[in-house]
Order: sequence, then structure tokens, then C-alpha cells
Amino acid sequence: MSSKISAVDRALVREFIQATAHELVDDLSAWVRIPSISADPAHAADVTASAEWLRDALLRTGFPTAELIETAGAPAVYAEWPAADPDAPVVLVYGHHDVQPVDPLELWDAPPFEPVRDGDVLRGRGACDDKGQLVFHLLGMRAHLQLTGLSAPAVTVKMIIEGEEESGSPHFATLLREHRDRLACDVIVVSDTGFFDRDTPSAVVSMRGLIDCDVQLHGPDLDLHSGGFGGAVPNPLHAMASLLAALHDDRGVIAVPGFYDDVVPVTEQQRSLMSQLPFDEQGWLADVAKSRATYGEEGYSTLERLGARPTAEVNGMWGGYTGPGGKTIVPTDAFAKLSFRLVADQAPARVQECVRAFVQANTPDGIDATVTFHGPGVRPCRSDVDDPAYMALTRAIEGTFDKQMLPLMEGGSGPEADLAEIIDAPMVFLGVGLPEDRMHAPNERVNLPLLLKAAEATAYLWVELATDEPQTSASEEGSR
Amino acid sequence: MSSKISAVDRALVREFIQATAHELVDDLSAWVRIPSISADPAHAADVTASAEWLRDALLRTGFPTAELIETAGAPAVYAEWPAADPDAPVVLVYGHHDVQPVDPLELWDAPPFEPVRDGDVLRGRGACDDKGQLVFHLLGMRAHLQLTGLSAPAVTVKMIIEGEEESGSPHFATLLREHRDRLACDVIVVSDTGFFDRDTPSAVVSMRGLIDCDVQLHGPDLDLHSGGFGGAVPNPLHAMASLLAALHDDRGVIAVPGFYDDVVPVTEQQRSLMSQLPFDEQGWLADVAKSRATYGEEGYSTLERLGARPTAEVNGMWGGYTGPGGKTIVPTDAFAKLSFRLVADQAPARVQECVRAFVQANTPDGIDATVTFHGPGVRPCRSDVDDPAYMALTRAIEGTFDKQMLPLMEGGSGPEADLAEIIDAPMVFLGVGLPEDRMHAPNERVNLPLLLKAAEATAYLWVELATDEPQTSASEEGSR
Repeated sequence: MSSKISAVDRALVREFIQATAHELVDDLSAWVRIPSISADPAHAADVTASAEWLRDALLRTGFPTAELIETAGAPAVYAEWPAADPDAPVVLVYGHHDVQPVDPLELWDAPPFEPVRDGDVLRGRGACDDKGQLVFHLLGMRAHLQLTGLSAPAVTVKMIIEGEEESGSPHFATLLREHRDRLACDVIVVSDTGFFDRDTPSAVVSMRGLIDCDVQLHGPDLDLHSGGFGGAVPNPLHAMASLLAALHDDRGVIAVPGFYDDVVPVTEQQRSLMSQLPFDEQGWLADVAKSRATYGEEGYSTLERLGARPTAEVNGMWGGYTGPGGKTIVPTDAFAKLSFRLVADQAPARVQECVRAFVQANTPDGIDATVTFHGPGVRPCRSDVDDPAYMALTRAIEGTFDKQMLPLMEGGSGPEADLAEIIDAPMVFLGVGLPEDRMHAPNERVNLPLLLKAAEATAYLWVELATDEPQTSASEEGSR
Repeated sequence: MSSKISAVDRALVREFIQATAHELVDDLSAWVRIPSISADPAHAADVTASAEWLRDALLRTGFPTAELIETAGAPAVYAEWPAADPDAPVVLVYGHHDVQPVDPLELWDAPPFEPVRDGDVLRGRGACDDKGQLVFHLLGMRAHLQLTGLSAPAVTVKMIIEGEEESGSPHFATLLREHRDRLACDVIVVSDTGFFDRDTPSAVVSMRGLIDCDVQLHGPDLDLHSGGFGGAVPNPLHAMASLLAALHDDRGVIAVPGFYDDVVPVTEQQRSLMSQLPFDEQGWLADVAKSRATYGEEGYSTLERLGARPTAEVNGMWGGYTGPGGKTIVPTDAFAKLSFRLVADQAPARVQECVRAFVQANTPDGIDATVTFHGPGVRPCRSDVDDPAYMALTRAIEGTFDKQMLPLMEGGSGPEADLAEIIDAPMVFLGVGLPEDRMHAPNERVNLPLLLKAAEATAYLWVELATDEPQTSASEEGSR
């Protein structure tokens, strides 16, 4: 799995990127100034302005086609730059130009949409998620053309950049279906994920799926006085506690029958690679998770629990009297919000049926249970680490960092699953967000040197993807 | 246990009560018109007016002493009528002149403080709880004097009628301690409880105690994204569910170690008497409890569960996201409100310690538990069914109804425990509230014929309590 890009060529790319780095910073600063909060209808015009900024930046970069695609919500941006070779592979890049809301505003050290550079870091909402991860593609494409000396990329590059990712991508699947032919490709490159840390080149290889629901347990038809009725009729709060407690056994294993049926076990190779990630569990607990103990499925490490295994989580619960002091009632209802993270090859619809059956089976006499799912759910998705596209990504990243690239299993869920299914192509992840980048939180920031590294990796990746059969000579770049 | 009141005397009492019944109705109607809601500061003047009405009514009935006792809250009423015989027993009657709030007002068929007579029923807030149960004492005293032909009662009758019972009697224990000498007595008669049904003469023989608390389980110091952290750190909602589920074992037995240590078991005699109560469990479930199944401690009947056995009840719980849709978080905190009904001889302070220890023992690593009790709790209290006072009450009630009196075990809790402990005298319960009287609910009402029966029982009770050694001749009144 060695690259055919020479050390001389790499030096050329690095020199070009260093010389034009200020343009990436300027581009990112300009774009961050547009408050494209998709969740807030008051910012609808800003989201459109953000799409227009990106369209213009793509045209300026040299894309012959770049345009807005309207949806029932915020517009997406589509761009296309055909390869000189009509037989070259087609790549589709995915990202999003909308950003998270900024609440709580008082926790920001500077206004979220007035980007501030501080040494290696640029702060501002969207600096990392996901505008930073798209501006590196602009610079990366220019570096790629420097590398090849051609006027068109080595692969056909299509970009589909949506405007509602931070609102749950409500119209993205429809967009994908309506434009399926135009978006057809051989490889999908997702640029909306992260690095393990700044010194550990890594690529996401899987994302978990998700189903979530409300559970209502209905007991008496009116609130009862606990003195007159307590201990003699079923209390829905007790029933809910027992139901939720029964979700896991005492080894942390999810006790919903059928839940694990389609789970692909973690291979020994995956476990071995994950164990090479320099994970400081105590530091993570104290500084990131702000928790005082780990917990989880017996027999798995924390990283495996976070990425490789499915979960059942209670996100909220309520019922009865919740005000000050006491009120001695047996209430009518108990409620809970549950979510389940899924891993390959769990199918949301099938797991939903398992959950429904579990709730019914664990509801006592005299209590009526209602389970309402919030939608069809999100499928898990993953890279095939034996696919040539994953190997090309590995060569591009290892060639950039002169270090072995390690796989990451992402615990979250996103529209990537729809992409993989509807567009039906292998998917790889090129993203350099860092755990300390405070995505979705106040004082979001991005590491600028890492964006430049990502631009460099992009320059190589289009070459690597165009190279069907990489040379098998030993790498010139030292250890992997 | 036979009475020495003759059939002729009973006929005289009944005739007097029938002839003056309209005065009881007039008194009750006038008093109900005063909206003495102690929980609402806007009604403070009404609560005082209610106390003044009662004071005047007691003076008018013939009590030589009747006055208001001020407290840090609403005033109580104290009255005293010494027996002609200075060696006669002293009786202290307890009740309250304040009433429950009226929300939701829209569910009332008529304004709550405009009493409406409808056949045997008088409707209005406080008609039963507890004004009705005090006006029968006014008429009962007059009937008693008719019966004895004397100008003073056969026992010294003291009355202490508080004004904050519906607000949790916050100043009653202090009042009792400050006036302990003045309130000293040989027997306490509580008139704030109920009959099993209108055809089943009965008397409460016990009330349950109560402790209640808030439990907080603290996990992460900030809400975490369930995709990035779920399944790898302890979720306080899971911990709360497991804790609450562990309160009971699968036989409905409370699993808090030490909880049952001081519980006096129900005797076979008590169980036999309770089983004679004509309890229609299916009707109770459907019409009163509005529930679809019974539930409770294995090996006990519903009535035993409600009165004779302690309980652990969750009254409220909350934590995490409770709004519309989903929010995939592992929240910082979970909260629950718990209450425990206690039976003789459980001591609130001791059970509180058991609960604290149970919560700590059932809190997993990484979760911090805080238990906050809402106060020192309420002791359980009971009548000694072998005490002469209980026998006197039995003779008075059986003589009134010509039927056997059955014991009731009250599931609720009240200031009676303070009375029993601070005043330190045997306690009996003379109250005729009915399950259908809608105490604390809209359209509260009282059964007027039953109030007249209670007045009759009062007339006899003062005689029976004055009779140290009842004659052992066979009763003239037929079956008991």
C-alpha cells in the first residue's frame, strides 16, 4: 500500500500550501462571519448567504459548475469539476455549510461570528464544524493542481454541501433521491469528522446509527393520594423505573431480546488497532467527560464501548410531582425518552420492533404502555477497510503525516448513512476536527496547521484515488 | 361491653336530634360560607373569621370558655366545659376549621362556598372535612345534656380545633407543647376521619406515619452527547431507575434493609375484623382508584396493604431532556421524590437512616447521591383496642347504629401522632366522612343523616366515657 507520489512532489505541495495558507485563513474568517444557524428561522437568509459564499468560493477555486440546490428547507451547494480523463473515478465530497446555535452566548470569550485568530487556532462558530473542513478542500484542490501540473483534477470531484445538518438533515434524503443520477460516484468522501488527537493521524471508519422514542406508562386515570392508594395499585413511576432498570443486565449488556442479533462483532484486528490509539482514559474522564468513573458493557474498553458497540440510553424521564417540597401522590403517568445507538448491521426498523416488544413484556398489569419513535431512525454506516478507497485515503494521510493512520469508530450518528445507502458507493472519512475544538459548544475553534495538513492530504487523495494499482515499491517516507 | 343507656333514653335523644336537625344544617351552611383556605394567604382573614364563628358557636352551645389561640400561622380555637363532677374524666376533642383549596374551580357544579342542600347531602368545601364533623359535636353536646338532664357534661370536654391542618399543621406541635397543661386529658377524641361506608359503623384505629425526601443522583458535571459518551460513563437516569426499581423485591416487599424492623405485624384478630368490611375491590378499583389492577405486598389483602402495612412510593421523578422530540444526552442529574408510609412502631428518624443507607448502598461508582428529607416525619399512631376509651366508643357507636362497629386502618397521616405523643393520652376516632364525600376534591359533600347519627353517638360517648365500670347486663339493643 505505498504511494507513487515522490518526496520531491510532496515538498512542492507543502511549499505551495505554506505560501497560500493566509488565503485559507482569510476564506475561513470571511465565511465564519456569516451566521448560518439552520435551526433558527431568523437566520434563514444567513444560511442562504453562506451557501452563496461557498458557491462563489468554489467557482473562484476553478470549479466549472457550482450552484445552489433548493430544498424544502435551507439550500445545499452542488459543484462539479470533471477530470481530464473521462474514465477517471468520480468522487463525491460531503459536508455542510450550516452551523450550530450559539447559546449560551455569555460563555463565549468573543462574539461567535467575529472570528479571532490566536496563534495556531481560529475561534468562531463553524470554524471547525464544518466550514474549516470545507475550506481545506478549496486549498487542497489548488495544491492538487500544483502537484499534477494539470488544469483539471485527477478524479472528477463532485461536492454536495448541505445546509441543514445541524438541524438533523430533514430534507437531505429527499435531495439525495431527487438528484441521485447527478450525484452518482465511485467513492464518497465525508469531511465532517475528527482526528483522535493532533499527533495521531486517524480516520473514522464507522458511525453508529440511532433510534429514539418516547415511552409513556399510564396508570390510574387521576392522581391518587398515596396515603389512600399507595401500595395497593400499580404506580407508573415504579413501573418505569423497573422498565428502565431492566434495559441492562448487571454486566452492562442490553437486555432487550433480539437487540444484538445483527451486530457485527468487533474483530481482533479492530481491537488491536483501537488499542494503539493513545487514549488517556483518566484524563478523558476528568477533562472531557467530567465524570468520576467509567461504566459500560463488560468485556469492552471505553473506546470500544463508544464506537464499536451499540447502546441503550435514557435521555430524559419525568412524571408525578416535581415541584418544591413533597406531594404524596401516585401519579397517572410516567414518561421517558430513550435512544439506542446502533452498529453495523443493526437495522433501525428491526430494533424498533425489539424495543416495542421489550416495553410491552416489561409493563406490569394495570399499566398501559405507549412507545412513540421520533422517526424511522438512522442506520449505522462504515468504511470497508479492505476497499481501495480506504487504502487510498490511508496513503494520502500517511504521506501527509509520515505516521501510521489509525482507524476511529465514531460514536455519533449522521446523514452519512443516507448518503451511503442512497448513493450506494464506498465511503471514506477525511476530517480533522479535534476533541478540544468545542464543536456545538461555546468558543468553538479549529487548529489551522491541521487544516493545512488536511489540504495537503486532499491534494494527494485525488491522485491516490485515480491510481487503480498503486506501485508496490517500498515507501520513501519512512515508517507508517 | 354493654351500655347502661336505656332504650327509652336513646329514643329521647333521637327525638331531640330529629327536632333540632335543621339547626345543624343551618350552622354548617353558615360556616361553609366562610372560605377558610389556610394554604392561601389571601384567605387569612377568612380563616380567622372561621375561628371566630366556631368560638361563638361553642359559646352559644353553652361552653363557658371558648377563645382563639393565636399561633405563628392561623388561629386555633380552644373551648372547655367542665363536668359537674370534678373527678369525671377529661376528654380533648380534636378537629380543624380550615379547608382545602378549591382548584380546579371549573369542576365544581356550584360555587364551593355557597352550600347547596340536595336531599340527604349538603355540598360545599369543608362540608365534610372538617366543619361537618365539628357541627355534629355542637348538636351532640346539646343532645347529651338532654340525655343526662344536667347542666354540664358527664365528662369535662375540651376542644382544640386547629386552623392549619390542610396546610400540614406547621405550628400545631408548638401549640400543643405550649399549652400542654391546659390540654391535659384522659382521652383524646379525633373527629377528622371516616366511616367505611354509610351502612358500616366503623372507627379508625390507626393512622400511618410518613417520611418523605428528595433524592438527587449527580453524574457528569455537564450534559454529555450520548453519541460521544453514552454507554461509557454512568448515566444518572439509569442509576435512578435501578435505585427506584430496587425499592421493592418481586413480591412487592420493600427491600430497604431494616425497614420492617419495628413493624408490629397485623394480628389474626385484626385481619379477621378487616375481612368483615364489605369491601368491593372491583368497584373500588374502577370507581375510586380509577386503576386497572391491584398491586402490592404479597400475602396481604388490599385493605391490609392500605392500612396495616408500610409502603415505599415514588411520588415524582425527573431528569434530562423532557421537551418535545429527542435530545440525545447523558444528563448531569436525576431526581426523585420518595415517600414512605409507616405503621406502628416504626420511628421516622430510624427509617430515615435506613433509607439514607439504602440509597448510598445502591448508588453506583461515579454517581453522587444526596438525600434530603422534608422534615422529621410523622409518626404512626393507633388506638389501643383494649383500652376502656375504645370500648366506650364502641358502645356509643353500636348503640347509635344497632350494629357491630368494625375497626378501620387509615392509610393517611396527620397531626394526630403529635397529639398522641405530646398530650400523651389514649386516642379514639369518631368521624363519619364517607369515601364518596370527595374530601379535597371538587364538589365536596357530606351525608346529613350520618352527621345526625354522629351527634347521637357523641351524646352517648360522654356518658360512656364517664362510666368507669359499665354494667355487665345483657344489652337491650339486640345484635352488635
